[in-house]
Amino acid sequence: MITGKNYIGNQLSAIGSKTYTTFNPKLNIENKHTFFEASKEEIEKAVVLASEAFEVFRKVSGAKKAEFLNAIADEILALDDLLIETYRSETGLPEGRAKGERGRTIGQLRTFADLVAEGSWVEASIDTADLDRSPIPKQDIRKMLVPLGPVVVFGASNFPLAYSTAGGDTAAAFAAGCPVIVKSHPMHAGTGELVSAAIIKAATKTGMPNGVFSNLNSSGIEVGVQLVEHPAVKAVGFTGSIRGGRALFDLASKRPEPIPVFAEMGSINPVVLLPEATITKGVDLAKTYAKSITLGAGQFCTNPGLLIGIKGEALTNFITTLSEEIVKIEPSCMLHPNIIGNFERNKTNALQQSGLSVTAELDSDVAVNYARQTVTTVEGKTFLENTTLHQEVFGPFSMVVQCQDIEQLETIINTLEGQLTGTIIAENEEALQYNTVIDALQNRVGRIIFNGVPTGVEVCPSMLHGGPYPASTDSRFTAVGIHSIKRWVRPFSYQSWPNNLLPDELKNENPLGISRLVNGKHTDSKI
Amino acid sequence: MITGKNYIGNQLSAIGSKTYTTFNPKLNIENKHTFFEASKEEIEKAVVLASEAFEVFRKVSGAKKAEFLNAIADEILALDDLLIETYRSETGLPEGRAKGERGRTIGQLRTFADLVAEGSWVEASIDTADLDRSPIPKQDIRKMLVPLGPVVVFGASNFPLAYSTAGGDTAAAFAAGCPVIVKSHPMHAGTGELVSAAIIKAATKTGMPNGVFSNLNSSGIEVGVQLVEHPAVKAVGFTGSIRGGRALFDLASKRPEPIPVFAEMGSINPVVLLPEATITKGVDLAKTYAKSITLGAGQFCTNPGLLIGIKGEALTNFITTLSEEIVKIEPSCMLHPNIIGNFERNKTNALQQSGLSVTAELDSDVAVNYARQTVTTVEGKTFLENTTLHQEVFGPFSMVVQCQDIEQLETIINTLEGQLTGTIIAENEEALQYNTVIDALQNRVGRIIFNGVPTGVEVCPSMLHGGPYPASTDSRFTAVGIHSIKRWVRPFSYQSWPNNLLPDELKNENPLGISRLVNGKHTDSKI
Repeated sequence: MITGKNYIGNQLSAIGSKTYTTFNPKLNIENKHTFFEASKEEIEKAVVLASEAFEVFRKVSGAKKAEFLNAIADEILALDDLLIETYRSETGLPEGRAKGERGRTIGQLRTFADLVAEGSWVEASIDTADLDRSPIPKQDIRKMLVPLGPVVVFGASNFPLAYSTAGGDTAAAFAAGCPVIVKSHPMHAGTGELVSAAIIKAATKTGMPNGVFSNLNSSGIEVGVQLVEHPAVKAVGFTGSIRGGRALFDLASKRPEPIPVFAEMGSINPVVLLPEATITKGVDLAKTYAKSITLGAGQFCTNPGLLIGIKGEALTNFITTLSEEIVKIEPSCMLHPNIIGNFERNKTNALQQSGLSVTAELDSDVAVNYARQTVTTVEGKTFLENTTLHQEVFGPFSMVVQCQDIEQLETIINTLEGQLTGTIIAENEEALQYNTVIDALQNRVGRIIFNGVPTGVEVCPSMLHGGPYPASTDSRFTAVGIHSIKRWVRPFSYQSWPNNLLPDELKNENPLGISRLVNGKHTDSKI
Repeated sequence: MITGKNYIGNQLSAIGSKTYTTFNPKLNIENKHTFFEASKEEIEKAVVLASEAFEVFRKVSGAKKAEFLNAIADEILALDDLLIETYRSETGLPEGRAKGERGRTIGQLRTFADLVAEGSWVEASIDTADLDRSPIPKQDIRKMLVPLGPVVVFGASNFPLAYSTAGGDTAAAFAAGCPVIVKSHPMHAGTGELVSAAIIKAATKTGMPNGVFSNLNSSGIEVGVQLVEHPAVKAVGFTGSIRGGRALFDLASKRPEPIPVFAEMGSINPVVLLPEATITKGVDLAKTYAKSITLGAGQFCTNPGLLIGIKGEALTNFITTLSEEIVKIEPSCMLHPNIIGNFERNKTNALQQSGLSVTAELDSDVAVNYARQTVTTVEGKTFLENTTLHQEVFGPFSMVVQCQDIEQLETIINTLEGQLTGTIIAENEEALQYNTVIDALQNRVGRIIFNGVPTGVEVCPSMLHGGPYPASTDSRFTAVGIHSIKRWVRPFSYQSWPNNLLPDELKNENPLGISRLVNGKHTDSKI
């Protein structure tokens, strides 16, 4: 069922000459399928089809879009074992993770289906006319959210399902009414093609226009560059490295017509241990953190890479327990030789920095492509002086910074770059006492956690997955949850527009029965 | 009362050596006050103060922010005739316009005061915990909008009050909890200083932190560049030319930490005359448009600079009436010799283009700095071939494009850049018939008007003032109305946070009584 071809709208296509394969990191062998990188002509055709599809798709009703999204979920489930096996062969991840991520992907699609079927997400707002108003008559003005146009989604290496082909970016863009062109991640091109086939089947079954979706294979940067520079592309979604996300942001900003890039990038997710809690909760927390740091071989964007506390007996105990516990955990296979290669290189680079010492590193033999979890520690002063130590080491690696005092701890927080998450380990009373520490952390993150771990991103309306740069390129939006739809829409106003020509969302009679802001009051009544 | 100095927080300051004056275009003389351009040290100090103020201001309650905003409105009113006279001496605009714009400015401040006093604007969202959930416990997650940090606002030449010192950008930023540094517009530095004094008085009276507002004089680009490049500045608001807005956007995008720039820039606001309506409504409309084109000497960003119809008797009649009517209108004084200089230069450049003919130009003598309103016409084919004709001529100038047929008209719409507004003149039936024309226009604008004029931007929740590039740099936001607050905020999530440490907006007991999304349902109840 895997052909290695691109989907240019509904058509499989392989006119380019460049090919590549995916890799099974667990078996340490190449997988059998050959993938054809999208050619310039294929990219152009996909974008033109998406533009044409937009004119139809942007008017498709919420009910029909919900059918489409639910059909994608059904078709993904119908792929059954083939999908799970392909996923595993391209990632080395265990079955439970594969099925869990599939469940999350399905859940996201159905959540957006429910959102658009209900319809109030368009934030309809109506101010009725007052033509007798003096000195100037008041015109009837009505506003709602409308889709931006074709969106390009870059698949993420670490989430082949939930943040890739039919992941959160794609589900949100379809829900908004935007056609999607996926730049498939080369490490899991087979998984990507299977999911693409599911999307195409769903689009055909539910009568969506040809071009509402395309899937382009690519092993280098050329396909992505051509897509982001194309005038008909109106927005970009990306999950990956700071280097990659920034490059796309720069390309998009330099276009004659700049377009928004929503890139969710790196983060070391600082965890702050306040003194009292380090005494009372330290040992228990150390066990929890040993698990959090190694979860999924540390290949989560919310992996806690930095723990900051005040030097002393309690922090020493924490480090000792964390170090003892973490080496008890079974090592796991990383996604790809490139990923473990980067992990080893970045870890070695960190370990070469003066003043950093290793407190735990798995020393038993591990299979090829399996990562050795590592815990290090450093003095606050050393950390402050050397920003190389602030860089993410993507994988099961964490650094404990031992500060001289709370002032140094606060200074360290104030020097950190933007982060997806920050965690405070505290007793309730000391959280009040150290409120400036919490304030400092809050200014630098998108989500703040109390006495927990940052891993595990709940998909719910209150989730903010994003944060100040470089956690993301635009902290005003989230990449997870229903509000992530706002990345792909713009508000649009109709003035003095005849009722019969208005979209249903704005008609007097409120045929969709949605909640609207009418003359400043929320209501689902008709006018 | 005008000192010519900068406000660096609460302090008047003039340590720089560069000075300039403002100009009275009606009297054609320099005004008497000398303004001191902000020095590098003053700029640095203003930004540092703003950063410090942010740590206090971002926690100020909605009720206190409302007091501050209302106090600004009161202090502006208390400036009374001095403000109106200064405004007039720096713009040449009539008293009615000055008072009207003051009313609008006051109205905006009070609207934002009401918004933050009520409090639901933070979009509070709460998903309560389900710690028994299997396989993974669900954590308590709560989200609300929080301010971005210090915002820089560039005053607009054409709205010294409503889009400048205490205009929409500033009011929205204060409401959000962001300190504001205004880069004062050099053409109305005196008006700017008076309004700044009002803001400072209001800030002091209502106990706002020093640095919540600064006003920097500047006659060149240096002050703006230093501000936008400063790492502590977190967002930028701008109203003005495409060249200016794009330059700021480029600077902000190239920063190590890119920041959002919301620039509301140029627009020619196309008006499409459909054939039937040109017959039935043409003559009446021509009279209305003669007024809209000359309103405020054409110095509105929503001025209709382009009218597009189908060649024929009805369009000829429209042009004839428009041309007859427009020259009957009293000419008006433009804002500044530079503005009328640009108007004359851009008009001359347009008139030199082959195929453009003048159908009306006021030929009586006019006073110095008064603009001669002008109507021109061109064939659709010529317009399509020469993009110089698509450029805005800021002032009382409009061009009527006579198309061969409806296909050519649609092609023209599809070649236009992004616009603030588009207008359709149509009979209800033909609007249905020509729906692809309306669709094409809709893709290019932020607001679409039926049988009206684009001038007159109602301040109400349903207003969208913005649009696809280059109408604005980010079509996902509006510059007018309560939702313009969204430019200066980001969502922020608290996970497992103790109830007593949460901001009031997210506490279980809902002490502010605001509307919140609790487990997916909107409610103002406590939990």
